[in-house]
Amino acid sequence: MSATATPSDFHAPSALDMNLIERVCVGDIVQRSADVYPDRIALVDGERRLSYAEFNARVDQLGHALLGLGLQHQDIVALAARNRLEMLITYFACARAGLICMPINLGLRASEIAFCLRDARARVLIAEHALRDVVEAARQEAPPELAHVFWFGGGSPAPAEDFDALLASGQTGPLEVLVRDRDVVQLLYTSGTTANPKGVLTSHVAVTIAGLSNAIVHQCTPDMSALVGLPLFHCAMLNSVAMPFLTVGGKLVLTQGFDPADSARLIDEHQINVMVLLPMMYGVWLSDPAYQGRTFPSMKRAMYAMAPMPPERLEAIHGMFPNADVVLGSGQTEFTPATCVQRPEHQWSKAATWGTATVMTRVAIMDEDGRLLPRGETGEIVYRGPQGMQGYLNLPAENHKSFRHGWFHSGDVAHIDEDGAIWFKDRYKDVIKSGGENVASIEVERCLLQHPAVADVAVIGAPHERWGEAVVASVVLAPGQQADEAALIAHCREHLGGFKVPKAVVIVSEFPRTGTGKIQKHLIRAELKGLFDAA
Amino acid sequence: MSATATPSDFHAPSALDMNLIERVCVGDIVQRSADVYPDRIALVDGERRLSYAEFNARVDQLGHALLGLGLQHQDIVALAARNRLEMLITYFACARAGLICMPINLGLRASEIAFCLRDARARVLIAEHALRDVVEAARQEAPPELAHVFWFGGGSPAPAEDFDALLASGQTGPLEVLVRDRDVVQLLYTSGTTANPKGVLTSHVAVTIAGLSNAIVHQCTPDMSALVGLPLFHCAMLNSVAMPFLTVGGKLVLTQGFDPADSARLIDEHQINVMVLLPMMYGVWLSDPAYQGRTFPSMKRAMYAMAPMPPERLEAIHGMFPNADVVLGSGQTEFTPATCVQRPEHQWSKAATWGTATVMTRVAIMDEDGRLLPRGETGEIVYRGPQGMQGYLNLPAENHKSFRHGWFHSGDVAHIDEDGAIWFKDRYKDVIKSGGENVASIEVERCLLQHPAVADVAVIGAPHERWGEAVVASVVLAPGQQADEAALIAHCREHLGGFKVPKAVVIVSEFPRTGTGKIQKHLIRAELKGLFDAA
Repeated sequence: MSATATPSDFHAPSALDMNLIERVCVGDIVQRSADVYPDRIALVDGERRLSYAEFNARVDQLGHALLGLGLQHQDIVALAARNRLEMLITYFACARAGLICMPINLGLRASEIAFCLRDARARVLIAEHALRDVVEAARQEAPPELAHVFWFGGGSPAPAEDFDALLASGQTGPLEVLVRDRDVVQLLYTSGTTANPKGVLTSHVAVTIAGLSNAIVHQCTPDMSALVGLPLFHCAMLNSVAMPFLTVGGKLVLTQGFDPADSARLIDEHQINVMVLLPMMYGVWLSDPAYQGRTFPSMKRAMYAMAPMPPERLEAIHGMFPNADVVLGSGQTEFTPATCVQRPEHQWSKAATWGTATVMTRVAIMDEDGRLLPRGETGEIVYRGPQGMQGYLNLPAENHKSFRHGWFHSGDVAHIDEDGAIWFKDRYKDVIKSGGENVASIEVERCLLQHPAVADVAVIGAPHERWGEAVVASVVLAPGQQADEAALIAHCREHLGGFKVPKAVVIVSEFPRTGTGKIQKHLIRAELKGLFDAA
Repeated sequence: MSATATPSDFHAPSALDMNLIERVCVGDIVQRSADVYPDRIALVDGERRLSYAEFNARVDQLGHALLGLGLQHQDIVALAARNRLEMLITYFACARAGLICMPINLGLRASEIAFCLRDARARVLIAEHALRDVVEAARQEAPPELAHVFWFGGGSPAPAEDFDALLASGQTGPLEVLVRDRDVVQLLYTSGTTANPKGVLTSHVAVTIAGLSNAIVHQCTPDMSALVGLPLFHCAMLNSVAMPFLTVGGKLVLTQGFDPADSARLIDEHQINVMVLLPMMYGVWLSDPAYQGRTFPSMKRAMYAMAPMPPERLEAIHGMFPNADVVLGSGQTEFTPATCVQRPEHQWSKAATWGTATVMTRVAIMDEDGRLLPRGETGEIVYRGPQGMQGYLNLPAENHKSFRHGWFHSGDVAHIDEDGAIWFKDRYKDVIKSGGENVASIEVERCLLQHPAVADVAVIGAPHERWGEAVVASVVLAPGQQADEAALIAHCREHLGGFKVPKAVVIVSEFPRTGTGKIQKHLIRAELKGLFDAA
C-alpha cells in the first residue's frame, strides 16, 4: 500500500454494498432499536402508541411511498407538524430514503414559511390539519417545485392529499438506500443576523453522533423515558432528546405545547426520567399552588435550556424533582446540540455557566484575529466537531463567515474557567434569544423603520423571567410625528412572526452613539436591563 | 437545490477547512478530553502517570515527528508493545497524523510478525525493548519499505533508533491533518480461515463510533476508571475499553499481562469500575485461597470475553464483585467490538448467550442463500453497521466472501431469541477461539502434515476451562510410521506461534467421513468434547 492508496483500494465488494453495510444513516436508528426491542413502546402521542416494530414498519412504508412520488436523492420534504407520531415517522422515512426532512418552525408567519419553502425548493409538504390556516396561506406563495401536499390529523383530505393514503401506497418491507456519511438528513431554518431565516443543512453523521453523544450525557438506558415537551421542529428536542432515546431503545412521550397539568400527569404515568424545558415552564409549576409540595421522583435529569436560573428557582425545582440533576444544556441549530451541558457536580457551583463541552464537541475561545485564547481569557465561543452543520443553504457568504479561521463561530462571547465551564458574557451577533427562538434585531428594526412615525430604531434583548430575553425596541420618532407603544407593537404584529414582536417599545429622544455615529447598543442594553424587573 | 446537488454545493468554505472543522478523527478523542480535563490522569502505567494535557501534547509531538520522517498519508506504522504509555501515544499520534497504526499481536512468532510487516509494507516500527528478541528476528525478514525502527523502555538505543529522541524531534503544538471519515486508523492482524494472518483495516468512523457506543454500554462517566488487563493489540481492549474511557475523559490503568495480586492491588488503588478479563483469569482469583472472601466494591462491570461461564463460577464472581454486573461481551476484529453485550437484566437468565446487539450494530441471522431469518431460526450471524472494517488488506476474494449478500459474515451459527439475545450454536468457519486468539485449523493442520509420520489430520477446538477452547489435533499416522503426542506437539512448537500449538494430539486409526469423503469435524468435536473435563 502506498501513499496513493485510498480505502476503496482495500476491499473488492462494490462501493454500493460497503456503503449499505456500514453506512451512517439516521434512518437506521429506528431500525436497530426495532431489531432488539420490537415490542417496546417507542412513541406515545395521547392515546396512541407505536412499538418500535410498528414505528419501523411505517418508516419503511412511508419511505417507499415518498420515493414512489418520484423524489430524487436529497430532495426536500417539508413538514408542518406539532409533536405527533406522523412527524417522527416522516422524519425517519426521509432519513431512510435519502431525502432531506425540513421540519417547519411553527412560530413563523405564513409569509416566512413560504420563504423557507421557496428557499429550499421543497418538493413535498406534509402538514397537520390543525395548522391548516397558516399552511394554506404559506402554500399560496410556495415554489413551483412543491408538487405534493399531504394532510394528517383530521379534516378528511382528498385521497390525493391524504397522508394515510400516501403511507398505505408504499410497499412494506425494508427500504435500502445508499446514504453517504455527509449526505444531509435535516434542514432546519433558524433566525439569525440576516433578515430572512437561514436554512441549516445537517448531515447523517452529525445527527447520529449527536444521538450517541447525548445518550452519554443523559446516561440513557433502554428502560428510560423522555418527555418531549418542546417542539420537535427545534434541534434541541429533535437531536438532543428524541435521537438519544431512540438510539438506545427508550420511550418518547410527545406533547403538543406545554400544559402544566398534562405534563405533570404524563411524568407520573410514564415515569419520565429526562426532560428539557424552558425556565418559564418550571416557573408555571412553581407559581401554581396546585403543585405546592408535589414531587416527581422518577425524574433523573430536569434540564433547562436558554438561560441560567437564580439559585432560589433552582432550589425550588430540586424540591419538585428530588432525584434529578437540574442542569442547563446549550447548543444551536448550526452545531447540533448539545454542545455544552452542565456537569452534575457543577449544577450548584456553576449554575450560571453554560456547562462544559460534550464528548464530541470542541469548544474554544477565539479573539477577533482568529487566535485561540487560553483559559480565563474572554473572546468568541467557537466550535469544532462532526456535529457541525454542512452549511447554510444558498448563503455562501454566510458560510465563509461562520467557518472563518477553521472553526465555527457562535457569535457568543465568553471565557472558559479552570474546570472547562463556559461563562457567557455577551453576544457578538446582534441576535436576541427569546423563548427559545432567535430573533434578528435587524429584522425587527427594518419592520419598525417602515412605520412613518419612526426615524430611527435600536432593537435589543432585555432580561425577562419568562422569555429569557424579551425583544425591546428603542425608538426615535421622526420630527413632527406621533406614535405610541401600542401602535408600534400593532404595526410589528402585522408584519412579523409572533415571537419577533417587541414586548416593549421605549420612545427616546436620541441614541447613545460612538464618535463615528454608530449606535452603542451595549449602553441601551444596560439602560433597559431592569425594564421587566417589576413584571 | 435539485437531485444533482451534493453536500459540497451547500457551503462555500474550502473542503479542507470543513473537513478539519467537522472531521471524525480518532486522534481528536484525546484532544477533546484534554480540552475539558487537562489535569486529570488519563493513563497509569506502573509508577508513571500521564494527565490528559501531557498525553495530548505527546500525541501532537510524536505525530509531528512521524510526519517529519517523510511518511505520507495512510502510511503504516507498526507497533510492537505491551500495554505501555508509549503504545497509546503512538496509536493516537498515528491517528492524528493520518497514518495507520498497526499494533502487532505478540502471540505471533517472529516469522509471522515478519509476514505482517511485509504484507502491510510497514514504513516504521516502534518497539518495546523487552520484546527485542522477537522483534529483531522479525526484522530480519522485514520489507524493504521498513525504513525506521525506534525502541522504547530501556536498552540505550542508538540516537537514530531511540523513541524518546524521535518524540523530542517533533515540534510542539497542535498537529492538524485532514482526515476523512473512512480513512483507515488501525490495522490489526487476525488469524482466521486462511493460513496467514489477515490484516483488518478499520476506519476513523468505526473506531470513533465504537468509543461512543461502548461508553453507552458501560455507562462511562469522567470519574470512572478501567483496568486494561488484556493486551491493547487486541480490538477488545483497544476499541471497547480504551476508546470509551478516553472518549469521556476517564482513567485507564495499564497492566502487562495478568498478575492476580497486581491486578487486585490496582483495582483497589484506582477504584476500578470496569474491566474485561478472560474467564480463566477470574478462575485464577477464585481458586487462590488468598482471595477467599476478598471483595472489590468499586467494580461496576466485571466483563468477560470469549465464552459463557457456568452459574457457579458466575455466582463466585458476583461474590467477589458485589456491586458489579457480570456480563459477557463479544465482537471480532472485523467488526469493531463490542457488537453484542449481555444486558444487565440477562446476566443470570441468559448467561449462556452472547448478549444482544449494541446500539450501533445490527445483528441478524442469515441462511446459506442470503435470506435473513426470523427470530428463533438458526443460521449464520451477520452484522451491519459503521463499526465494520473497511476490508482485509490485499485479500479481495476474502472481502467479497465476507460481505456477500450485503452483510458481514461472522462465520458463527446462532439463533436470536424473543428478547434479542444471541444463542451461539456452532461455527461455520473452521476457526478455534483459544485464550482470546483465533486459530485457523488449517494452519495447524498444514504444519502437522509436514511431519513425516502424519498421514492425515483434523484440528478442532475442545471445550477447556482455561482457554475457552483448546486446540486439539486428531491424527492418522502414515503406514509404518511412529510418532507420539509429545513429538507432534514439539514439531508444532517449532513452527507455530505459541497459542496455535495443540494442547493435545489424539492418534486415531481413521476419521469419520461423509459419503463424498469429507472429514466430519462435528463428529470429531463431539467425541473430544470431554477431553479436558478431568483437567
